[in-house]
Amino acid sequence: MTKLQDMSRSQLRQREEALVQSHAALRGRNRTIDMTRGKPSAAQLDLSNGLFNMVTEADYLGADDEDYRNYGVQSGIPEAKTFFAECLDVPAESIFIGGNSSLQLMYDALARALLFGVPGGDGPWREASFICPVPGYDRHFTVCETLGIKMISVDLLDDGPDMDAVEALVANDPAIKGIWCVPKYSNPNGIVYLSDVTRRLAAMTTAAPDFRIIWDNAYAFHHFEGELAQIDNILDVAAQTGNPDRPLMFASTSKVTFPGAGIAVIAASDANMADIVAHTAVATIGHDKLNQLRHERFFGNRRGLHEHMAKHADLLRPKFAAVNDALEKSFAGKGLAQWNAPKGGYFVTVDLPDGCAMETIRLAAEAGLKLTPAGCCHPYGRDPQDRTLRLAPTYPTQREVEQAMDIFCVSAELVSVRKLLSEH
Amino acid sequence: MTKLQDMSRSQLRQREEALVQSHAALRGRNRTIDMTRGKPSAAQLDLSNGLFNMVTEADYLGADDEDYRNYGVQSGIPEAKTFFAECLDVPAESIFIGGNSSLQLMYDALARALLFGVPGGDGPWREASFICPVPGYDRHFTVCETLGIKMISVDLLDDGPDMDAVEALVANDPAIKGIWCVPKYSNPNGIVYLSDVTRRLAAMTTAAPDFRIIWDNAYAFHHFEGELAQIDNILDVAAQTGNPDRPLMFASTSKVTFPGAGIAVIAASDANMADIVAHTAVATIGHDKLNQLRHERFFGNRRGLHEHMAKHADLLRPKFAAVNDALEKSFAGKGLAQWNAPKGGYFVTVDLPDGCAMETIRLAAEAGLKLTPAGCCHPYGRDPQDRTLRLAPTYPTQREVEQAMDIFCVSAELVSVRKLLSEH
Repeated sequence: MTKLQDMSRSQLRQREEALVQSHAALRGRNRTIDMTRGKPSAAQLDLSNGLFNMVTEADYLGADDEDYRNYGVQSGIPEAKTFFAECLDVPAESIFIGGNSSLQLMYDALARALLFGVPGGDGPWREASFICPVPGYDRHFTVCETLGIKMISVDLLDDGPDMDAVEALVANDPAIKGIWCVPKYSNPNGIVYLSDVTRRLAAMTTAAPDFRIIWDNAYAFHHFEGELAQIDNILDVAAQTGNPDRPLMFASTSKVTFPGAGIAVIAASDANMADIVAHTAVATIGHDKLNQLRHERFFGNRRGLHEHMAKHADLLRPKFAAVNDALEKSFAGKGLAQWNAPKGGYFVTVDLPDGCAMETIRLAAEAGLKLTPAGCCHPYGRDPQDRTLRLAPTYPTQREVEQAMDIFCVSAELVSVRKLLSEH
Repeated sequence: MTKLQDMSRSQLRQREEALVQSHAALRGRNRTIDMTRGKPSAAQLDLSNGLFNMVTEADYLGADDEDYRNYGVQSGIPEAKTFFAECLDVPAESIFIGGNSSLQLMYDALARALLFGVPGGDGPWREASFICPVPGYDRHFTVCETLGIKMISVDLLDDGPDMDAVEALVANDPAIKGIWCVPKYSNPNGIVYLSDVTRRLAAMTTAAPDFRIIWDNAYAFHHFEGELAQIDNILDVAAQTGNPDRPLMFASTSKVTFPGAGIAVIAASDANMADIVAHTAVATIGHDKLNQLRHERFFGNRRGLHEHMAKHADLLRPKFAAVNDALEKSFAGKGLAQWNAPKGGYFVTVDLPDGCAMETIRLAAEAGLKLTPAGCCHPYGRDPQDRTLRLAPTYPTQREVEQAMDIFCVSAELVSVRKLLSEH
């Protein structure tokens, strides 16, 4: 295969013409496929339909005959705490159970930091900055942007954030109050943090005494290839290195059961937990305990959860394989695109030649494929090289994923060829 | 009946002795009754057990075949908006549906005002004050205290807040950013706002351009005597008087279905709704749509809601009657206590002679009756006259309410008699 870069101008013209025809043919099929968001498919949701029957009018009492229909049990029911404690390998007393959204828990944690400060600090955060490993999760970045927290990009490498860069930044600037981390099957590029990275994050010297690691373990159980990746327990490592209050761990069942009706949790140190409970108790008498009970009964224990996730994996594996196969077929050896082949999580990222992302999205949209906007993986939605794209293959059907990849690959190659032509 | 104030010292001594004996006898029964909070009883919750069967694996799709198990529909499902719009007499597009707690919605609304400001203002609220009609709801006051919003007490009269006082305050102080209102069957004294009060609140001149009425219509449907009280629609009146963005209306099904697993809503003007949606969309992809659907199906429409509330009323009527009967029997004509006989809501307040509330609570606790702490109806938990008590008779059984009132009346009279003796 000739690398595009090695093609002559006339070869490139020929290739462009062929791709234009392919694109026109795809456009003519009037498809509408949405690959914008990390949404489970209906088939995945069906795996959790048992939830509907887990709590009935004959059986809504919890431990100690507590009536879970009524007010109270503010920080979460003990059954659900025990379940999440086992799954996340933390003590049950380190768990707070919220509503259906871990994003909401993260947003609230940062909003509280701005209003009140956090344990170990000297009051409300002002002029705060956050380190944002890039590529990252757009909703994390939007939370910072909305709250006026300045974002500082560092590279997300194959084993976690570029720790040399992170350590240099946090050592000197007390305004840097935290870092976003998706430590397992990272959104969007699927990498897994190595122990050394986790240890350095926990142990590093920070100019801010109240630095926080937002440890968004959104894909803690979400593998579809090989064994479930293991990451170090940030709460343990932070405690061992003398910084017990630094991490806030988040997880949820959003992509385990029902995204719209799941359970989100925080795990944190005693001091953080006391702070969280004290503040949230002012705002609510407790989250939905019946839904917590549904979840605990549905899984029973960690083993039940992992068996359930294996069924998700069976549905996701062929979709991610289709993405990778299409990328291999279209781009292998062409020196054009780089992409990851994740073993878990919800996304594939593709890096095209500089300046090609937005135009690829435009052409894909013309042919009926909706992609996440360019820049979504960067703070402020700005990809300075305009090259990174995020593919979310979980929601469409298998056939749609294959069709989507036809559109994507033709669009991306066409844009890349035109770029090369413009540079010739 | 001789008024206590007219008794001689020896008559008072005799009465004290009798009450001490009664109190000792009650104490000897080792009862444990909790009248601290406005919690529905188990029998009330049973009325809503139909909710458990409203959404099944065969039937979870909403309007337009939207899969309510998945992400999305951030501001609430259209079915539930239509239902609440009918019940609250507002347009469906003025409704935002949250999680299970209207307190959370109110807390978040004020927290956002501190962080971002509100439509019509010039940025984040700083050094803000709130008017707090007294007696009021302790959790409202705790929200203000936690958020650093200074509280200014005004009297809650029989038809609403003392509007002469309110108007004088808000006209001159731009730091006064809002007022708490529980306009129907007010917590804690059950009064209902008259139209004239509502109109004055909506129309009054405020030095703050971004003044907000927190219209906590928590007991919108909650009557147990006579016809449901009618209050004016604050959104309509505010729009008519040129202040459409002033009110934020809150309601919930916490005391309609399950307090732990209900639905909370905000109703507000277009500008406020746009602001609410824009901010909450950063924090969550949406609240629990399955639970919204459960509720909409369970009630069907406003009529279904009112028929349901009539069943609550049948359970609550005898409890409130027992409270009133006991108070009448013990205190009528003695010039000792004043209390209200509400026709809806969840509470009765009793005003004792100055300086008698805390000691009454202590004596009641000795005899096994737990009451809300003294000062609960006042900002900062401080009742300057130490005289107002809140009784919450909904949660205990009928028999427990009767027993509780024995304890309460003996304790209150004993404390009052001793107060008179100390002044003789």
